[in-house]
Amino acid sequence: MRTVTKDNITDVFLGYMSDDMDPRMREVLGALVRHMHDFAKEVDLTHEEWQAGIAFLEGCAAIESEDRHEFILASDVLGMSSLVDMINSSPDATSSSVLGPFHVSGAPPLEVGGDMKRDFGGPVLLAEGVIKDTDGNPIPGAELDIWQTAPNGLYASQDADQDMYSFHALMTVGADGRYGFTTVKPVEYTVPSDGPVGDILNACGRHPWRPSHLHYIVKAPGFKPLVTEIFPDDDPYLDQDTVFGVREDLVMTYVERPASTFPSGMALSGKITEPYLHVTFDVTLAPEG
Amino acid sequence: MRTVTKDNITDVFLGYMSDDMDPRMREVLGALVRHMHDFAKEVDLTHEEWQAGIAFLEGCAAIESEDRHEFILASDVLGMSSLVDMINSSPDATSSSVLGPFHVSGAPPLEVGGDMKRDFGGPVLLAEGVIKDTDGNPIPGAELDIWQTAPNGLYASQDADQDMYSFHALMTVGADGRYGFTTVKPVEYTVPSDGPVGDILNACGRHPWRPSHLHYIVKAPGFKPLVTEIFPDDDPYLDQDTVFGVREDLVMTYVERPASTFPSGMALSGKITEPYLHVTFDVTLAPEG
Repeated sequence: MRTVTKDNITDVFLGYMSDDMDPRMREVLGALVRHMHDFAKEVDLTHEEWQAGIAFLEGCAAIESEDRHEFILASDVLGMSSLVDMINSSPDATSSSVLGPFHVSGAPPLEVGGDMKRDFGGPVLLAEGVIKDTDGNPIPGAELDIWQTAPNGLYASQDADQDMYSFHALMTVGADGRYGFTTVKPVEYTVPSDGPVGDILNACGRHPWRPSHLHYIVKAPGFKPLVTEIFPDDDPYLDQDTVFGVREDLVMTYVERPASTFPSGMALSGKITEPYLHVTFDVTLAPEG
Repeated sequence: MRTVTKDNITDVFLGYMSDDMDPRMREVLGALVRHMHDFAKEVDLTHEEWQAGIAFLEGCAAIESEDRHEFILASDVLGMSSLVDMINSSPDATSSSVLGPFHVSGAPPLEVGGDMKRDFGGPVLLAEGVIKDTDGNPIPGAELDIWQTAPNGLYASQDADQDMYSFHALMTVGADGRYGFTTVKPVEYTVPSDGPVGDILNACGRHPWRPSHLHYIVKAPGFKPLVTEIFPDDDPYLDQDTVFGVREDLVMTYVERPASTFPSGMALSGKITEPYLHVTFDVTLAPEG
């Protein structure tokens, strides 16, 4: 009879796997379980600590809903989401950064130069740039999915006072690859910290803040889709983003411009009568495959 | 500005921990995240695989309830529950083995020699033994919490046809430390495999079977509580328990006895008119601390 011991249990687990199972599944699940076992043995995990782990998962389950993605949030604050982003980043392309839980599909189209600010207060931000390939050539017809917080620090899905797609837009660039839009500068905000993930942050003495950022998903036929974010270089949380999203090439200077220079060809041209912020951020996509 | 990379993200995570956080929490959470990061880097985890992991957790969350503990089941079939049992086993005491999800508190008292079989069919099993300390002395007043499947392979909580505490009992031993009871031999059974954990078993080409077993929790003042199981040595699933619960010292020979030898002093004495099975299993508890 084969006795299971703490020294052979990982091999027994691997031995249970069928010879004809999917090889990648075998590799990934085998490595996951080996690391989980090594973790438990390394720290001599107690039954009480195991129970705390189960209680954490059950606590996440209890508040999981369409509007609250506690497991993704756990992955975010433990660095797993950002790590997966970095593992899969293409070295010659713009860095990817966390998707987060606030992207929604079906955002309304916005023409190049259009406005997301509408009647919201706060500093006007003009964001523009070119979507290009790794040779520097523009990618005509690339699609830019944009989302961000309102000036109150909330995404539309968190805020009953915003309509469903407020500060969400989908832009298709022309032959020159240029995008551009006006908005309100996004603000730093806290991730939800009233659940089990917040308990972990508290236990670690960590804050729940993220630096201000614009979210982009950029897609074009023949290129790897890119999920990324842009950060202003003067944000107080730049060095301590609670979800580890900051990469050097995603940090931009938001230049202050006088009102009189507000460029033509934008939906808000002539309507801006105060100084505004200007960020130029080109996006480089890697070829598919 | 500190750029997060896949090479430094684990250190950035550890650096976010406050100096005055609980040292054991720092050790356990730090090791958990280090192993999770190492896992992702080792297999070059893709976004699709990360999403499959999140979908697994959300799928467990969707069916988690008072009667369905999918996260515990995941821990069981991945070997984590058994590993924690073995890490915390006392070498001089009886081995511990998985609690499983079917223990219920508040089982009715059963006197030594009492019967759990009642009107159920199936092979009669007489189980008895002594609860003792590591010097071999009996532990008077030790408490034995017993539970098992009905002959249909279901625990009371899974089966509308059984009453709430069917095949559950709580026995307090006397000065000689002896326990004993009659029951129906428990049957091998499958863990629930219609959820996300079942999907993993299927993907691995694994079956969901556990060998037949009696569950015990044994407690006495001054001793470490013991959660364990007893297995018959002729079970077809002994070498492939899907939750890794089998240990050498928990495998017993269930001896066949002729009806005429059924011992006196048992609730069923004189009522057993057919051959029966007999298992003797002494339990050794380790001192507390």
